[in-house]
Amino acid sequence: MAKNLTSRGEDYARWYNEVVQQAELADYAPVRGCMVIRPYGYALWENLRAELDRRFKETGHVNAYFPLLIPSSFLEKEAEHVEGFSPELAVVTIGGGKVLEEPLVVRPTSETIIGHMYAKWIQSYRDLPVLINQWSNVVRWELRPRLFLRTTEFLWQEGHTAHATRQEAEAEVLRMLDVYADFAEKEAAIPVVRGRKSESEKFAGAVASFTIEAIMGDGRALQSATSHDLGQNFARAFEIKYQTREGGLEYCWTASWGLSTRFIGAIVMVHGDDAGLILPPRLAPWQAVIVPIWHSDQERALTLGAAAQARAALDMFRVKIDDRDELTPGFKFNDWELRGVPLRIEIGPRDVAGRQVVLARRDKPGREGKAAVPLDRLTAAVAEILDAIQAALYERALAFQRAHTAQPAAYGDLCAAVAEGFALAWWCGSADCEAKLKADTTATVRCIPLDQPEGRSTCAVCGAPAEKKAIFARAY
Amino acid sequence: MAKNLTSRGEDYARWYNEVVQQAELADYAPVRGCMVIRPYGYALWENLRAELDRRFKETGHVNAYFPLLIPSSFLEKEAEHVEGFSPELAVVTIGGGKVLEEPLVVRPTSETIIGHMYAKWIQSYRDLPVLINQWSNVVRWELRPRLFLRTTEFLWQEGHTAHATRQEAEAEVLRMLDVYADFAEKEAAIPVVRGRKSESEKFAGAVASFTIEAIMGDGRALQSATSHDLGQNFARAFEIKYQTREGGLEYCWTASWGLSTRFIGAIVMVHGDDAGLILPPRLAPWQAVIVPIWHSDQERALTLGAAAQARAALDMFRVKIDDRDELTPGFKFNDWELRGVPLRIEIGPRDVAGRQVVLARRDKPGREGKAAVPLDRLTAAVAEILDAIQAALYERALAFQRAHTAQPAAYGDLCAAVAEGFALAWWCGSADCEAKLKADTTATVRCIPLDQPEGRSTCAVCGAPAEKKAIFARAY
Repeated sequence: MAKNLTSRGEDYARWYNEVVQQAELADYAPVRGCMVIRPYGYALWENLRAELDRRFKETGHVNAYFPLLIPSSFLEKEAEHVEGFSPELAVVTIGGGKVLEEPLVVRPTSETIIGHMYAKWIQSYRDLPVLINQWSNVVRWELRPRLFLRTTEFLWQEGHTAHATRQEAEAEVLRMLDVYADFAEKEAAIPVVRGRKSESEKFAGAVASFTIEAIMGDGRALQSATSHDLGQNFARAFEIKYQTREGGLEYCWTASWGLSTRFIGAIVMVHGDDAGLILPPRLAPWQAVIVPIWHSDQERALTLGAAAQARAALDMFRVKIDDRDELTPGFKFNDWELRGVPLRIEIGPRDVAGRQVVLARRDKPGREGKAAVPLDRLTAAVAEILDAIQAALYERALAFQRAHTAQPAAYGDLCAAVAEGFALAWWCGSADCEAKLKADTTATVRCIPLDQPEGRSTCAVCGAPAEKKAIFARAY
Repeated sequence: MAKNLTSRGEDYARWYNEVVQQAELADYAPVRGCMVIRPYGYALWENLRAELDRRFKETGHVNAYFPLLIPSSFLEKEAEHVEGFSPELAVVTIGGGKVLEEPLVVRPTSETIIGHMYAKWIQSYRDLPVLINQWSNVVRWELRPRLFLRTTEFLWQEGHTAHATRQEAEAEVLRMLDVYADFAEKEAAIPVVRGRKSESEKFAGAVASFTIEAIMGDGRALQSATSHDLGQNFARAFEIKYQTREGGLEYCWTASWGLSTRFIGAIVMVHGDDAGLILPPRLAPWQAVIVPIWHSDQERALTLGAAAQARAALDMFRVKIDDRDELTPGFKFNDWELRGVPLRIEIGPRDVAGRQVVLARRDKPGREGKAAVPLDRLTAAVAEILDAIQAALYERALAFQRAHTAQPAAYGDLCAAVAEGFALAWWCGSADCEAKLKADTTATVRCIPLDQPEGRSTCAVCGAPAEKKAIFARAY
């Protein structure tokens, strides 16, 4: 229930934490930095996972499972990789009551252990490509935890592929970026910018990292999924070689890509309002909730009967009847608003008499989002309205993104813009300019968008010639 | 491919390891005791998981996710629990580059951390029952690893429920045992004996443990899933209390139940033969494989075209076309036999001309399992044959179980019986008799079956009065 939810304008970070906890998406765990994903949050993750998994399989990938524990020497085989991940590691030093000869790292990501196995499995060009994904938990020690956004343990998927040629690996990296963008936009109703990471923001050990960046309700960016071109870096470190058709021996080209429970944070922050969550119908655990309204036992029986009929007519959707006694309809309305159920279906005694129900859209509070619908049109009406909500959420988020993407040319304007949202500005590409802006504003280069304008100009930071525009923003 | 597969008679343990690795279900990982679940094995796990998950949800359970890392002090709150699990723990002592003040245990099971959260979430009788399941990885240090059967890390599900009364908790424990038995028999075609564990074999911290026990191809038992009545043990340790309807404060009654990747080992050992795996159609990653047979490019095009048509007619099944060049049909037949695909569909040029295909059952090698089927009957024929294979595998396994369940009355016969399979014998219930048999034969009490004969008799070990029969067997 909505227990004095802080408004977004008052304190956005606090609003976020309250929504996540009051809607029972997640809770803090007794281990610092860790969270519990509660059933409602996990159901959202299950829907998200099913849609992503379907896309992975349609693009030829299969799932597998690799070990949680990785010999610490594995990480050291790739110099940048170990440097990037060392500060975040959880290390098992005792196993079965004994101090281990070699400590084991709880996987922060699995390039190393998977690279080791690929070296064993891949012999010939006939074994390629290897297109494997893993759904798993990973651990990266987190000192400033936030539910879903930054947690010591999180759930994710990590795709790991090996290819015979550089071109194939590069194509895979961009294909999976498109899969993520398609998923984010179609399923989560979240518009994203596809782009390349700057050198300072790329994955430890990658040749190039690509990202989809989304803008949150407070104007900050959230890296929503990444896809990495690993070149031959991990193939060389782990001796992943294959015999070519001509009989030679070559290193493979590998790629990796991932999306995590962090994405749930994006759903909360992109769509939520001061009344709580708003979930996109395609991912919502409950797409509609039926609230029968009664004032007597007789009315209770009547409206619950009609509710059961309505649900039967909606069996292709995820629909819940809220039949809780001791709670008023008003309380229930607030409760489901907080939990972001896209559509509320009200059934009172007069509705039963009139053979109708009242539909109320979560995304349009008040009269505008309400409509009485005859029972015999219910199935079609709900299908239409859920589609309309899905589309409206995307349009609203896209309009917000556009309204909060400035195109500053001068440094002062750039600094002002990143306080409000995205700044799409010319950048010379130098790490110095990136560092200067970060020092002045905490904003970073979120990505160099794949879609670039024609021409060239001068860097918004230093004035040197610039060939590309970048998205600068403060980020989660 | 079948690379000199050891026969079961020659060396059962070796046959098992070869089948698992050659069929590419799993591979050894570079960390002692750990395994990699390869895509084919993982696809089997995905099918198994989907069927179990459906059953859990139908019985009112929801999924959630609790942390991997548990404060070591949590385990110590339940005396038997910590005693039972201490020797198997992997312990994180370093996090984020620093030695931790309190070491964290990598979960061996989650009663403790979930108990901690339930104490926070449960306030009133209105919050009960809590019916949560978790799909996750767990770690129990293993010195004598065997792929799937005993691995340091494994995947599983663990259900954790909290109830207002003892009766409700006990009902839950037996309901979930029935869910497991139904799953094992209907989906995996594995007959099981439902029963209670002896005191020495029960879960550390439980009041009573229940199990489904299956007999493997070598006569040994495999505990295939367990369901534990935890009484108020964990509720007391973690202060899981609720306010009753009358206003009092009571401890909850809790239960837990689990099934792991170990079950895949049971599928291998119950159904496999000297040619490799035999997978039950309802869980098989590929229910049928189409092998086109060609001797020329023209025949190749012809048979591949027919194969595509056949697969289109079978789109409600999981069907693969083996279009690999450079491999002979004979090689492919052996390969898919090793991998246990229930049904092979052969299409040669003469079959194309005759508008037919040849179906070959994996469970009936040779002429008996082969039949030519007209293309226009293919869909119905495959549906019937897959059902027939599923039923035949169960019947064969049940016949094996019956043939290998002796009912010895004297100790000498009991000792002889456990060398061959299950011994269903009267037992006085004393731990001494259990220990004696174990010392003499390595066999243990697998369970005290829920289905008991009428009457009473004398213990097959000591001759004292006995009220119940037990299943004694050597076990994995």
